[in-house]
Amino acid sequence: MTLHALRIGLLATATALSGPAPAALAGPAPVESAPDWKATNLLLDNGMEVVVVPDHRAPIVTHMVWYKIGSADEPPGKSGIAHFFEHLMFKATANHAAGEFDRAVADIGGSNNAFTSYDYTAFHETVPPSALEQMMRFEADRMRNLILTDDVIKTERDVILEERRSRIDGNPQAVLDEEVDATLWQNQPYRIPVIGWMQEMEQLNRTDAKAFYDSYYRPNNAVLVVAGDVDPDVVKAMAERTYGKIARGPDLPPRIRPVEPEQNTRRTVTLTDARVSVPSFSTQWVVPSYHTARPGEAEALDLLAEILGGDNHSRLYQQLVVKQGIASEAGAFFQGTMLDATNFTVYGSPRGDAKLSDVEAAVDAEIARIAKDGVTDDELERAKTRYVRSMIFARDKQDDMANMYGSTLATGGNVKDVLEWPDRIRKVTAEEIKTVAARYLVFDHSTTGYLLPQQQVGN
Amino acid sequence: MTLHALRIGLLATATALSGPAPAALAGPAPVESAPDWKATNLLLDNGMEVVVVPDHRAPIVTHMVWYKIGSADEPPGKSGIAHFFEHLMFKATANHAAGEFDRAVADIGGSNNAFTSYDYTAFHETVPPSALEQMMRFEADRMRNLILTDDVIKTERDVILEERRSRIDGNPQAVLDEEVDATLWQNQPYRIPVIGWMQEMEQLNRTDAKAFYDSYYRPNNAVLVVAGDVDPDVVKAMAERTYGKIARGPDLPPRIRPVEPEQNTRRTVTLTDARVSVPSFSTQWVVPSYHTARPGEAEALDLLAEILGGDNHSRLYQQLVVKQGIASEAGAFFQGTMLDATNFTVYGSPRGDAKLSDVEAAVDAEIARIAKDGVTDDELERAKTRYVRSMIFARDKQDDMANMYGSTLATGGNVKDVLEWPDRIRKVTAEEIKTVAARYLVFDHSTTGYLLPQQQVGN
Repeated sequence: MTLHALRIGLLATATALSGPAPAALAGPAPVESAPDWKATNLLLDNGMEVVVVPDHRAPIVTHMVWYKIGSADEPPGKSGIAHFFEHLMFKATANHAAGEFDRAVADIGGSNNAFTSYDYTAFHETVPPSALEQMMRFEADRMRNLILTDDVIKTERDVILEERRSRIDGNPQAVLDEEVDATLWQNQPYRIPVIGWMQEMEQLNRTDAKAFYDSYYRPNNAVLVVAGDVDPDVVKAMAERTYGKIARGPDLPPRIRPVEPEQNTRRTVTLTDARVSVPSFSTQWVVPSYHTARPGEAEALDLLAEILGGDNHSRLYQQLVVKQGIASEAGAFFQGTMLDATNFTVYGSPRGDAKLSDVEAAVDAEIARIAKDGVTDDELERAKTRYVRSMIFARDKQDDMANMYGSTLATGGNVKDVLEWPDRIRKVTAEEIKTVAARYLVFDHSTTGYLLPQQQVGN
Repeated sequence: MTLHALRIGLLATATALSGPAPAALAGPAPVESAPDWKATNLLLDNGMEVVVVPDHRAPIVTHMVWYKIGSADEPPGKSGIAHFFEHLMFKATANHAAGEFDRAVADIGGSNNAFTSYDYTAFHETVPPSALEQMMRFEADRMRNLILTDDVIKTERDVILEERRSRIDGNPQAVLDEEVDATLWQNQPYRIPVIGWMQEMEQLNRTDAKAFYDSYYRPNNAVLVVAGDVDPDVVKAMAERTYGKIARGPDLPPRIRPVEPEQNTRRTVTLTDARVSVPSFSTQWVVPSYHTARPGEAEALDLLAEILGGDNHSRLYQQLVVKQGIASEAGAFFQGTMLDATNFTVYGSPRGDAKLSDVEAAVDAEIARIAKDGVTDDELERAKTRYVRSMIFARDKQDDMANMYGSTLATGGNVKDVLEWPDRIRKVTAEEIKTVAARYLVFDHSTTGYLLPQQQVGN
């Protein structure tokens, strides 16, 4: 998991990303103009779940299919296959040549893409409502009719290998992040990079791909999310005419993954690289996700991240960047929308003559202060307001709403969880924030990554 | 893998150990009195491999069965099942009550036990030659006739859980070692403790055990090693009468395991505990094993470990303990007899007023000196002599010879590898030692575990 903030658990949809990435929502806006985002939830006979979120502000619709399969579900030694399959889904099917789907979207002025994460793989298009059924036909077609030849596999494997070389191996921060993840997670599969380990990606073959496709690309392992200027009954009829014709696949076993043992040590991972100019650190802890937490704990962690380091109002920013002037950046984030236990992260980088160790000590001090003294009622209220607003007013980002439903349903949650989220956030008490800070953010059981310039060895 | 020296890759046989443990051989003895340890190697029709090593110095025989199944072969989420199965093998079979085998060994004044490691599980008895066929009958019986009831599973699971609590969770060094292993190994299964993670051990059930037994406890996945006062032809006939009657099992797939990606970072793992009185550290590197190395590299690593920190003649001991007087202990070891890539380890602990960081810096300096200047011809010759002698003169330890054959054959080697080992050691050059030190023992790509007393936080 990367260092970037993942506000309310959404994924960026602009590019075919491997792993979570920033997706900050638009700033506050007046409450009274927001749509109510009420979602209709139904199940097709073949087991495909459908969520429709009407939004009539503009003649546009976001169409997404989420498969409940991510890198954390991959067989041992086959890392990268979930992301590889995301790529393969853009290849030829029995009914359409490679590129035909993309061209159809472009021809009507729409946009499309896909992304893979630890717990899911999703495909999406944003188009005028008149093109929705065409999108469904294309998407339903590639769910079962891909043509996986050795040639297709080889060509696309070269693409993902090159993607790894440029995105990870050529980027010291990404190289460090991978080894930090694999140090933080010692048993749970989030330790494996979404894009895969190079030596395993090189071996992925047609047999692996076919087995993966036949196991997971099935209507009973998929969630359709349609958000936009549509009527739920019309969407339902369209979904039945398209996806509904696909036969249900074999039942999938429950997604029970290896669980992380208790951490008893303080761990560090240091990368020293000539390409780094400014040192930085990030410290992570294993914490519960919305799916694994006791009631209220994940909400408290979300607000703790907001108060500690969510934005320019946060304690870390105000104290380290504004008042002390020792940091060029400092913050915190919590990735709540995960199937298994997840991570809480703080990070910082020095400014001017300040040392990295000064910034780290100041961050530790702010955490210790919350764990000992808690937060004020006033800053809690302000944090709740900011947080709930950011959830409610995604007015320019219809796809963020679709993402929120899709990622929640793909990680063990349901539509009710999304709808009730603001209320659950509002109920968190200052005592609960103090409790989760004291319980989880323990220095002796943390994992820190250091990215250092070459000359700063030993900093 | 633990901090203890594992001289020439043997395992202690005195107790049912989880994971490698010390097994230093007896000291030098005159060459001319050594038996030649020539081994006979044959295959039963059902695929069971047999190695006979005649040793007529005493009327005693060591009988071992090695299964090519260890903790690194376990399915995801089922950690500990290989070791659990070692325990289950002492339970009732269709033909013998639980404890009957043990009593038969005790009644004739013999000894017996078993051990589990990453790559194999072995069972052994040391008895008078007249009892050998009886041992074979018992051992062959439990290979296929165990009675695995829910009651047996539950009772023995409680035993392994208690074993974990006392052996690992109650021991700060063991807790640290586990997390260091899981930090050193980020993909290869040696990151998982042999005894298993508690939360997974608790879930092991009869279905898991039965599947494991039926897959791996088969003659075609086993190696019989008989060392002692026996005739190879007689042993062969006995093996055919006992083990030979067991049907061959289904063919097993090749043991291809997830491979470790290249390490790009320096990693540390620190455990601070009130029960620790003296601080210590150990630094590990991923290096090739005899099974994965290029020709000569593993032999060079064995001699590097010997010269750097093998015993009281070593550079680390002489420099840190004797001359500088800053360390109470300092040494190095290499675990060569492994199926996959393995680890090279250095360790040390301060004495008197010296700090742990002084010891660590002095160890690093000795490594840097070998990587830069190499070793002298004289110390190389002396190290070879010590090393080869320790291999050849295990005169009081017939079972060490059996172990050497068993562990080699269970990790992808053969009888010839064992026989030619001394010659290969003798061929290593000083240049090769310098090369492996410079190639593998790189500080920026190392993993260090620190065990600190409570008051030494921040040492």
